[in-house]
Amino acid sequence: MHLAQDTTQVNGATNYGKNVVESLKKEEQIEQAAVCKLTNEQDHVLKSFRLLIADLCQQFNGGHPGGAIGMAAIGVALWKCVMRYAPHTPTYFNRDRFVLSNGHTCLFQYSFLHLTGYKAMTLDQLKSYHSDRVDALCPGHPEIEHEGIEVTTGPLGQGVANAVGLAMATKNLQATYNKPGFDVVSNHTWCMIGDACLQEGVALEAMSFAGHLKLNNLTVIYDNNQITCDGSVDLTNTEDVNMKMRACGWDVIDIEDGCFDIEGIVGALNNARASTDKPTFINVRTIIGLGSAVAGDAVAHGAAFGAADVSHMKKLYNFNPEEHFVISETVRGFFADLPSRGEELVQSWEKTVQEYEAMYPELGAEFRNRVGGHLPGNWKDLIPTSFPGQPTATRKSSGLVFNPIAQEVKNFVVGTADLSPSVNMMWKDKVDFQHPDLKTTCGITGNYNGRYIHYGVREHAMCAISNGLAAFAPNTFIPTTSSFFMFYLYAAPAVRMGALQHLQVIHAATHDSIGMGEDGPTHQPIELANLYRAMPNLLYIRPADSEETAGAWITAIEAKNTPTIISTSRHALPQLPQTKRNLVAKGGYVIEEVEDADVTLIGVGAELCHALDTAKELKAKNIKARVLSFPCQRLFDAQPTQYKRDILRRHKGIPAIVIEPYAPNGWERYADAGACIKRFGHSLPGKAAYKYFGFDTPALVQKVEDYLQQVRDDPMLRGEFVDL
Amino acid sequence: MHLAQDTTQVNGATNYGKNVVESLKKEEQIEQAAVCKLTNEQDHVLKSFRLLIADLCQQFNGGHPGGAIGMAAIGVALWKCVMRYAPHTPTYFNRDRFVLSNGHTCLFQYSFLHLTGYKAMTLDQLKSYHSDRVDALCPGHPEIEHEGIEVTTGPLGQGVANAVGLAMATKNLQATYNKPGFDVVSNHTWCMIGDACLQEGVALEAMSFAGHLKLNNLTVIYDNNQITCDGSVDLTNTEDVNMKMRACGWDVIDIEDGCFDIEGIVGALNNARASTDKPTFINVRTIIGLGSAVAGDAVAHGAAFGAADVSHMKKLYNFNPEEHFVISETVRGFFADLPSRGEELVQSWEKTVQEYEAMYPELGAEFRNRVGGHLPGNWKDLIPTSFPGQPTATRKSSGLVFNPIAQEVKNFVVGTADLSPSVNMMWKDKVDFQHPDLKTTCGITGNYNGRYIHYGVREHAMCAISNGLAAFAPNTFIPTTSSFFMFYLYAAPAVRMGALQHLQVIHAATHDSIGMGEDGPTHQPIELANLYRAMPNLLYIRPADSEETAGAWITAIEAKNTPTIISTSRHALPQLPQTKRNLVAKGGYVIEEVEDADVTLIGVGAELCHALDTAKELKAKNIKARVLSFPCQRLFDAQPTQYKRDILRRHKGIPAIVIEPYAPNGWERYADAGACIKRFGHSLPGKAAYKYFGFDTPALVQKVEDYLQQVRDDPMLRGEFVDL
Repeated sequence: MHLAQDTTQVNGATNYGKNVVESLKKEEQIEQAAVCKLTNEQDHVLKSFRLLIADLCQQFNGGHPGGAIGMAAIGVALWKCVMRYAPHTPTYFNRDRFVLSNGHTCLFQYSFLHLTGYKAMTLDQLKSYHSDRVDALCPGHPEIEHEGIEVTTGPLGQGVANAVGLAMATKNLQATYNKPGFDVVSNHTWCMIGDACLQEGVALEAMSFAGHLKLNNLTVIYDNNQITCDGSVDLTNTEDVNMKMRACGWDVIDIEDGCFDIEGIVGALNNARASTDKPTFINVRTIIGLGSAVAGDAVAHGAAFGAADVSHMKKLYNFNPEEHFVISETVRGFFADLPSRGEELVQSWEKTVQEYEAMYPELGAEFRNRVGGHLPGNWKDLIPTSFPGQPTATRKSSGLVFNPIAQEVKNFVVGTADLSPSVNMMWKDKVDFQHPDLKTTCGITGNYNGRYIHYGVREHAMCAISNGLAAFAPNTFIPTTSSFFMFYLYAAPAVRMGALQHLQVIHAATHDSIGMGEDGPTHQPIELANLYRAMPNLLYIRPADSEETAGAWITAIEAKNTPTIISTSRHALPQLPQTKRNLVAKGGYVIEEVEDADVTLIGVGAELCHALDTAKELKAKNIKARVLSFPCQRLFDAQPTQYKRDILRRHKGIPAIVIEPYAPNGWERYADAGACIKRFGHSLPGKAAYKYFGFDTPALVQKVEDYLQQVRDDPMLRGEFVDL
Repeated sequence: MHLAQDTTQVNGATNYGKNVVESLKKEEQIEQAAVCKLTNEQDHVLKSFRLLIADLCQQFNGGHPGGAIGMAAIGVALWKCVMRYAPHTPTYFNRDRFVLSNGHTCLFQYSFLHLTGYKAMTLDQLKSYHSDRVDALCPGHPEIEHEGIEVTTGPLGQGVANAVGLAMATKNLQATYNKPGFDVVSNHTWCMIGDACLQEGVALEAMSFAGHLKLNNLTVIYDNNQITCDGSVDLTNTEDVNMKMRACGWDVIDIEDGCFDIEGIVGALNNARASTDKPTFINVRTIIGLGSAVAGDAVAHGAAFGAADVSHMKKLYNFNPEEHFVISETVRGFFADLPSRGEELVQSWEKTVQEYEAMYPELGAEFRNRVGGHLPGNWKDLIPTSFPGQPTATRKSSGLVFNPIAQEVKNFVVGTADLSPSVNMMWKDKVDFQHPDLKTTCGITGNYNGRYIHYGVREHAMCAISNGLAAFAPNTFIPTTSSFFMFYLYAAPAVRMGALQHLQVIHAATHDSIGMGEDGPTHQPIELANLYRAMPNLLYIRPADSEETAGAWITAIEAKNTPTIISTSRHALPQLPQTKRNLVAKGGYVIEEVEDADVTLIGVGAELCHALDTAKELKAKNIKARVLSFPCQRLFDAQPTQYKRDILRRHKGIPAIVIEPYAPNGWERYADAGACIKRFGHSLPGKAAYKYFGFDTPALVQKVEDYLQQVRDDPMLRGEFVDL
């Protein structure tokens, strides 16, 4: 069936699709049976599914019905005919992964989870969509915490990148563990996207990278309904998407009639699974909100259809308009075999793994450990117990601490957004994660069992892909990313999604502070720490020297449900005898204590040494300064009140001054004044930049003296935070 | 000359390019004169330029020499032969715009600015690159504040999007003001990019959009040296870039020998300027660090070559290795005509405009106003003086306030990232900014004189393109963007670049707070305000009702050098009789004063009404609560100390409690305790979400009572910030 295309703009929206629907209707009588090859059963299932979606949105008069309805046939093809999964063992390790990148169509996934027999997703739960039930399994976007959901999606484009990470996880496990006759890992990753995901930069980065990696175990299914919120996609995007995907190294399959052609979709999906050397992009033409009065229109996207329209749909489909949420025995029967089919997969896989363990005891044990998300017990012993005494940039310390672990422990996959020479994350004899054929075509060595990933200059995709790697199974992979700290602003939406999903991803962020120097204000992260210190479930740690860098990595590796940013310096920092790796986990601790202190100096990361130098100079002026190291606000917040009071000692009337060339916002909780920065940076060599902004010792001494004088002159200042 | 391609990986880097250089050398003797068609003068200029770059990096042993050296011939073609600009009148309105998206190669631009006669860029200034001179005009990346620099670049991909905005500005001005025989605006936009920009999502978004818009006045010149920091681009990107660009609607021109073929480059650039219906992508093969020992290698990218290598280069080029920064009379002569040629352009344009003003007095006056960056004097009168009394979502209030201005005042170009139905930024009879041909091909109406921009789901590009629109000339355009507040995290790098560049862009961010409801934690911006409140030179304003929304827009429109985020609610908010539009500019003010107050409640934006309700209930319990409205921390910070003390009254011993369902970080400056949120949100209808997180009135009353009791029990708490 060939769908006519036409688009006319009406008051900012469009009626694209109405012509499509009309032409469809005309052809239906003659062609449907022949062309669409729908059995009566399939036809009934599709209609039931579409009405179920319409009812679920109508119930609380909200939600996103159109996309889910348009994608019904794709869903039947996936869940009934193609995907390998186990509804009664949702965490079956070798299951196919399904990602709904167009997460607002979540009812699509929720409804198929219900129909295919996921136990948690009862009909009652399904009906909780848009309700005020606080334990609902049907939030407005899919959430990883719930049975059958692989990743939380919603912010567009993220899911595609997650899917790339999931497919990479499979490739790496396969290359590391599979043996002839023993495919202990063989799953495929399927990702649904809408028109919007194809516009988002993070998806474009990730798809370009997937093409480069030749991930033939990844299929992206494009729900091509040509409608976004504003109307026709033609308003904003008139590119040749198939040509673009081919240019990026993907196979492309077109499905003309995605609303009904289940057989065609199944064929395309099976072809995609069989692809030998490329990821597959299946471009499926669908009609948003098919069957409703707003079919093919933007208003079908994000609003319930209204009772009259839902009623009309039911009549059109020969259903009883008085009945709601109808799932007939026929529909139940259609999906009934899936749980048992799933359990067969689980048992067959378990048998394979047991035989594999017998044949390859060492590798088998390691594989079981990976499946269980365990690290080798000795990982901490791999960290140097001491460091050379010379000043060392903490970005180098990061390598000293972490590379021996990364080298030995296969859970770690380490990537960089094209900053290998700067971030020091390469270990001896590291192997790149690459398609092996790249050696022949480009001379680049690497393999899928490699664990060092050159992401290219794609910070956002790097972090979103890392979320996918981490989501494959809990802690089976602990992905590490690396770039300049400033560029974690590009990646921030993905870092956030990792924190929201409790995924352990470690971000090695170098070149923090203004000490990074000449690259100037575009690269000096004045306000970025404020975002990450406020972001829930994320640790932002600034270590002060090699010893604290060891503590930062230990903390990050032990935080199984929390991503961490380890924020390090470009420039060499002195090794401070007072720092303690095991105290980093406290967030803040005393570095230098004095009796009858006049002031507490809070030193942070690369500037802790400035605090110590300042205290020393102050002593010569008879001002007694205690010094704290304060690598992580969130870790400090988690300490008992008494610990925090003992460390800060503000209740003893000792004012605290923080020294950090970042925006002060938030330090007010711990300090009375701050030598901080409230403007953008300046391009100067690191030392000169410190001086320019008043972070050299004489200037800091002056600031402390000034502050102490100011509060003597105006005691009210003691109740306020003072910017020095 | 056809360059051989070969790539071999060596220890993580590659020696791609060495073979290229060798083959080049072999062919040079026979072919150079014939194929490259370089005159002796051109040859001398190129060599001088390359040695100048090498010397400038060698001087302080740092910087990025390789790219600038590789691009020398492109620069000669642009500045000597193709671009229309005026070195002695750098702000000439109709000049071609040049954007260095690969900003780390800034010496490329700085050196041509010097050679072509920009007065500020003396040789002394040029030599300040990487020095500790604080007034240097040669920072590590180009900065808009300096003569001849159109936009600040450095974070990769931003420049491309800026260039798209600059080209759109031209199109809009042309369609609005040009008349037959009077091309008062006719400039072209040229943008250099490297391999990295082609990987960044923001650039991919922007280039897709530029293709859609058919911006034939935009040319992107790709410095295709196939090298990034990690080595060969083949490590990360093996796509067919030309095919990809064609798929996106661009013309593509290949230049094989971009190191020498000035004539070929000039031809391509002139063809690009003459393009009738598409933007042009010129793919220029170059060799990074040509002439040095590390030519074609990644190490040529970001480090000085070393004295020996620079000396060797000079010998190879028959220059005296003892001499540095040599600019011969021949070189000076080569560029000598450019200032006078530029002044002729300026005079000719001025004459055209004067004749235009005579012929079209009204339009001419308006055009002059736009050139001067002025708004019509009456813009403020267009804002309603009062609003209907019924509860109104502040996103709707935004439309009520701003749309009458947008409709009348052509400086405003208003865009949305595919959320037109949600953000309420469409005015009556708005015309879309579109290529007029789109009507024929897709039925979409619009024109280049339209000022409503459907950006698609491309938040990051939307904001980066808006920076380009704003950078065209100060305040000639005041671009407005719109999306859900949460998605300004996607756009954050561009919002930051706007703030850094002092560009007036107004971001209408809707669906703030947890009140946005069902979309859940992926859409609820718990920690995002912390970023924007800390970001220098940015106003983040949360108005509480329609009246404050008017104040927010007035503040934003009057902030000529500062971008603003106006953060509004999805849900209806009561119209509060106490709010005052003119007090929004104070950042915080008293809404309800009481004698002998027990507590101050700080209400913010959508939750100010919660603070008022809480105060009312507290009164019934004999607890006297003052209430502040606090729409903008930064505006408040700028007030005199006495004003701030009078408003907060913490020095009177009255504790302040802030009520805002965001992360509290930073509120410690103004408050003693906070009813805030330190975890991610939850998918629930708005009201239920408020209740779930304890923001309903009974829960807030309880929190205030608890706090007052707690501090009675433990007075130490008065010196600490308490999370309620």
